[in-house]
Amino acid sequence: MEYRKVKDQESYDDLSLKDVESLSGRSLSSANASATGLSSAGGAKGKSSWKLKSVVTLALTLLTSSQAILIVWSKRAGKYEYSVITANFSVEALKCLLSLAALFRTWNHHGVTDDNRLTTSFDEVSVYPIPAILYMVKNLLQYYIFAYVDAPAYQILKNLNIISTGVLYRIILKKKLSEIQWAAFILLCAGCTTAQLNPSSDHVLQTPIQGWMMAIVMALLSGFAGVYTEAIIKKRPSRNINVQNFWLYIFGVIFNLVAICVQDYDAVMTKGFFHGYSFITVLMIVNHALSGIAVSMVMKYADNIVKVYSTSVAMLLTAVVSVFLFNFHLSLAFFLGSTVVSVSVYLHSVGKLQPQK
Amino acid sequence: MEYRKVKDQESYDDLSLKDVESLSGRSLSSANASATGLSSAGGAKGKSSWKLKSVVTLALTLLTSSQAILIVWSKRAGKYEYSVITANFSVEALKCLLSLAALFRTWNHHGVTDDNRLTTSFDEVSVYPIPAILYMVKNLLQYYIFAYVDAPAYQILKNLNIISTGVLYRIILKKKLSEIQWAAFILLCAGCTTAQLNPSSDHVLQTPIQGWMMAIVMALLSGFAGVYTEAIIKKRPSRNINVQNFWLYIFGVIFNLVAICVQDYDAVMTKGFFHGYSFITVLMIVNHALSGIAVSMVMKYADNIVKVYSTSVAMLLTAVVSVFLFNFHLSLAFFLGSTVVSVSVYLHSVGKLQPQK
Repeated sequence: MEYRKVKDQESYDDLSLKDVESLSGRSLSSANASATGLSSAGGAKGKSSWKLKSVVTLALTLLTSSQAILIVWSKRAGKYEYSVITANFSVEALKCLLSLAALFRTWNHHGVTDDNRLTTSFDEVSVYPIPAILYMVKNLLQYYIFAYVDAPAYQILKNLNIISTGVLYRIILKKKLSEIQWAAFILLCAGCTTAQLNPSSDHVLQTPIQGWMMAIVMALLSGFAGVYTEAIIKKRPSRNINVQNFWLYIFGVIFNLVAICVQDYDAVMTKGFFHGYSFITVLMIVNHALSGIAVSMVMKYADNIVKVYSTSVAMLLTAVVSVFLFNFHLSLAFFLGSTVVSVSVYLHSVGKLQPQK
Repeated sequence: MEYRKVKDQESYDDLSLKDVESLSGRSLSSANASATGLSSAGGAKGKSSWKLKSVVTLALTLLTSSQAILIVWSKRAGKYEYSVITANFSVEALKCLLSLAALFRTWNHHGVTDDNRLTTSFDEVSVYPIPAILYMVKNLLQYYIFAYVDAPAYQILKNLNIISTGVLYRIILKKKLSEIQWAAFILLCAGCTTAQLNPSSDHVLQTPIQGWMMAIVMALLSGFAGVYTEAIIKKRPSRNINVQNFWLYIFGVIFNLVAICVQDYDAVMTKGFFHGYSFITVLMIVNHALSGIAVSMVMKYADNIVKVYSTSVAMLLTAVVSVFLFNFHLSLAFFLGSTVVSVSVYLHSVGKLQPQK
């Protein structure tokens, strides 16, 4: 029960970032063209963008791994008495506030320009709510898939996201990966799955065809979501990231507000909005908000491939840290999976250096 | 019990090929120089050597995989009433006979030359018995290691052979692998181990330090053996392979004869040399003899790296074929391990094409 709550919260948090869809060919092509333009700016700018890329990637990795540790920690403390939807609302609201605060700072330092102005055209903003809509589709599917797949098998199947992200990244954003980078990506998926193996993992092979289909559709939705977000954020590279984040998150705030009214209205009215919040709840909300912003940053300054690597490495880091914090035992499968993931990370970076054929 | 017998037989069979040691620096350098000379002969010869390499590699893969299937088959038939040492003797004798038969054919077709003459110098022959001596060291260790490690854990630890072969191949034969090929080699080890994972595999992590040390020493002995055999076979590239095989196998015959006299003398005298042999015993002896010759061929025309890949792929093939023959079930770990091994094979061949830095 607690586990499911945490899972729901995770999903809600990803509302405005992961679960996006239906992208018009036109806007994608231009996004792609802009991205190419951005990456061709070399020299000193290239070096500083590399630095920025590294910093946001590191931030995402650390935030994601500490996120999972907070979840384990809170599970052990056994406190989940708060409304999950209000927590998601708080995460979205905090992200909005942080984006606005950063914007105010920019306005004070550099003044208001075309790139950091909050007011904008309907055409630009109209794509931002799509994540929220898409999220609902995936969340709905998530309830149905548990009719065919149990939770541990679902964790294994979620690694299909890695493959779908790579494939959609290639097809939709039309960015090329070298042959070695493709090999590395397959290894990343195999390595992550291996690291999560446990004696009951073989159940996943008995998953009925409906379960597989739904898992594949969910992986495609999730991959599409990430790629879509990257496209809308990169569509206008000179656009201030905080303006883009504001529009990305404000729809999360609105949709969560609607969800509270529909599902949790009575509880919030009788027990209060923040009922059951503990110190760890606040920590988790802050962590989720910062992770969300880090994902946006990675989309802006790096790409979905980097995001997938970052969260995969975070998964391994979490397990290693848990050994010290919670006396977890690492399995042989974990060591083997970690080795494969490490080699994959190495190959991804080496593969980049090879001349493309 | 039957399982152990099969294991022993496997080890005996490898007598003259795997378990070799103590190679002088001088002879190695010249072997290396000769090997380089051989590989630099390009053009039409390069193409035909590539074809030969492919054929012997394929032969080794198919023979090794059918070998394991024969073992499973014979285990199910439950017939192991014969003396394992006489079987080993038969394997070595059959290899010698086949080498001699091939030699006679060569003499008839091309006449006797310096390269296919059986008589040779003491200096050349003196290195050939070393495999047999080294084998005894490893076989002795194999009895002791079971005090610290159980059989399934030992199967997992045996994958250390892959790493030791790569490292010794690099250090002793001074042949270079590209960075990507090294990555592929680590993946091969991780992939093979993953494919063999079962719910009790985690026992291996509780292996005491003595067990680890012995496993590492055995892996080094095994790796050294392979690399040493490659060095003595490649030392004189123009030398007829059947002459080299004859000298390699004749010491196997002699050492096994000694073993029969010491261990099985009474049984052989009272029940007869071939007591308990069945059709499947004969099949296994033929298979082991042909596999042994295929290993020599791979050492001559390819190298230890190819041999390791070949036997690893054979392990996976065996499992897949067993699904159809014996109704085996493949685990998720097997699929993941096979994926990693496949990517490793791909990377090994792609890595070759990259210009070395």
